[in-house]
Amino acid sequence: MSLESIKYQRGNLEILDQLLLPLQTRYIKVLGVEDGWKVINKMQVRGAPAIAIVGCLSLAIELLKDDSSDKKVMRQEIEGKLNYLVSARPTAVNIKLAAEELITLANTLSADETVSADTFKERFISFIENMLVKDIEDNKAIGNFGCEAILNSLKGDGDIRVLTHCNTGSLATAGYGTALGVIRSLNKSKRLEHVYCTETRPYNQGARLTAYELVHEKIPATLIVDSMVAALMHVKKISVVIVGADRVAANGDTANKIGTYQIAIVAKYHNVPFYVAAPLTSIDMSLKSGDRIKIEERPDKEMTHIGEFRIAAPGINCWNPSFDVTPASLITGIITEKGVFAPDKLHEVMNQ
Amino acid sequence: MSLESIKYQRGNLEILDQLLLPLQTRYIKVLGVEDGWKVINKMQVRGAPAIAIVGCLSLAIELLKDDSSDKKVMRQEIEGKLNYLVSARPTAVNIKLAAEELITLANTLSADETVSADTFKERFISFIENMLVKDIEDNKAIGNFGCEAILNSLKGDGDIRVLTHCNTGSLATAGYGTALGVIRSLNKSKRLEHVYCTETRPYNQGARLTAYELVHEKIPATLIVDSMVAALMHVKKISVVIVGADRVAANGDTANKIGTYQIAIVAKYHNVPFYVAAPLTSIDMSLKSGDRIKIEERPDKEMTHIGEFRIAAPGINCWNPSFDVTPASLITGIITEKGVFAPDKLHEVMNQ
Repeated sequence: MSLESIKYQRGNLEILDQLLLPLQTRYIKVLGVEDGWKVINKMQVRGAPAIAIVGCLSLAIELLKDDSSDKKVMRQEIEGKLNYLVSARPTAVNIKLAAEELITLANTLSADETVSADTFKERFISFIENMLVKDIEDNKAIGNFGCEAILNSLKGDGDIRVLTHCNTGSLATAGYGTALGVIRSLNKSKRLEHVYCTETRPYNQGARLTAYELVHEKIPATLIVDSMVAALMHVKKISVVIVGADRVAANGDTANKIGTYQIAIVAKYHNVPFYVAAPLTSIDMSLKSGDRIKIEERPDKEMTHIGEFRIAAPGINCWNPSFDVTPASLITGIITEKGVFAPDKLHEVMNQ
Repeated sequence: MSLESIKYQRGNLEILDQLLLPLQTRYIKVLGVEDGWKVINKMQVRGAPAIAIVGCLSLAIELLKDDSSDKKVMRQEIEGKLNYLVSARPTAVNIKLAAEELITLANTLSADETVSADTFKERFISFIENMLVKDIEDNKAIGNFGCEAILNSLKGDGDIRVLTHCNTGSLATAGYGTALGVIRSLNKSKRLEHVYCTETRPYNQGARLTAYELVHEKIPATLIVDSMVAALMHVKKISVVIVGADRVAANGDTANKIGTYQIAIVAKYHNVPFYVAAPLTSIDMSLKSGDRIKIEERPDKEMTHIGEFRIAAPGINCWNPSFDVTPASLITGIITEKGVFAPDKLHEVMNQ
């Protein structure tokens, strides 16, 4: 049984508090948009796809309780609340694109005189609920396409040894996962020999969450610290790197968890293929290149403390960007639910 | 006033417990060789030059208390105890070379019939005490040569922005430091704009010790986590990387703290010069290349816990090599107390 990071039934939303993992498994009730903003901003839920879904579901919860019968007021509130939710984490694009889609839907429903306030609400909530279902379907497609492409490209090279970074599994998505979904599919195909996951400082998503999922799924796995990637590639054979994405620009440049860019450089140096696994909702065709991606900087305390325990010398300044941008030139392929594309071929699938 | 990691007066040796830094400043008395082995193995003292000096001083302390008058027994005991001390950390070469030098000295003194047991002891202890003095002199020379070479090579490029890894300062040596010694000299020359230091997982020598020294010395500095190096070089201008060494092979391949190899690859990708600062005692001409360097692997707990607090998912395997080897091809120059040498020119200074 795969881990469930988001528990949802109409009128009830709970999320697994990822800050407490792996030591405690505790769910938090999300009663509306304000709770949604908080759990995203505090990183109790994280991962670009999961952020989008939890944000939108928190709006669905709030709408259900709303007994307004004025569609225009509803439309206006929806737009304001979605913009508020998007502000909780600025780098992930999925919630921004989902918000745009939902605002367009609200505009259409509001303008359509044949739609009553109740129907507006019902169709709007159903649309959000469908995102949860679709994310899992998309992830399974990503897993299968990625597995197939990697097995084809490494044909005859024996079993696959994967390196991954950060957490991109059931805990980062509605379920199954993106990069970790590909790993899951490789494991199902019996061709996975071993997974190495990075600790992923400063928030330790790899050590806390990916390691937790890999142990839970009984996938053979080993944890390394972020600085061991080059040594790992030199000493142990690595077949492929697979990571997720927070936002992919039109030219294939990819913003992902800090450290991804470094791994891509080190992979290139060792001739190891480097794949990004992401649903089409992570691709932002409005940005020509990665230079335009806004990079969130987070508080020093994430680096200087573990919980309340100080690990860095008092008085030292910190620089804490949460993401970096990997240029398309270092990326072998982008694995989506529509297939695997070279970074410069993304427009083909996006214009379909 | 520079930090003092080793306090020594004849008959009394105390070392600053680096595991307690930066939260507590506590000195530990080292009463003999067994204590010496323990503080090295537990990493209460660390840094290749400091390990050698503390190991040898612990022998001096023990010898002073020894009232044996049999030179042969003394010689035999010295050899056995030095081999024991070398076994505490297998990668650092300085203590191995120091042990060889001391065993040769003991053999000579033992064979020389004009030397009494008391003179043997006196000359042997003085020789060790001199290592402490010489290490500081050598570090100051390293600092000056490195500063000069870097200022010459970056002429007209404005002030210098340095990245360093791990701890190579007063806490890793008898005083002043190797890579941090060069940084100190750049700062004295008023040409240092900023220092970035990596956290240096899993033992956090950068966050705990280098950051502590930089704050203590009021050198403008910022801490990053190990995975931010590529993003740092892309976003902020870095003029030069300077690191220390645990062992340099005859061809210039350099074993240093895990993560160094990765930084060197990333520096090459961004055209940033990469220097190794190390005394000649870190150079092991008996090893043709870095492939032959034995890499210490340390316990999983260093990665899975911070103190007694677990940070990784229970049940996950770990790989925890303490060092990696940077090939000479990625190294711009090796800064020694005799000058700065291209990696392939090391034999020139070693054969002098």
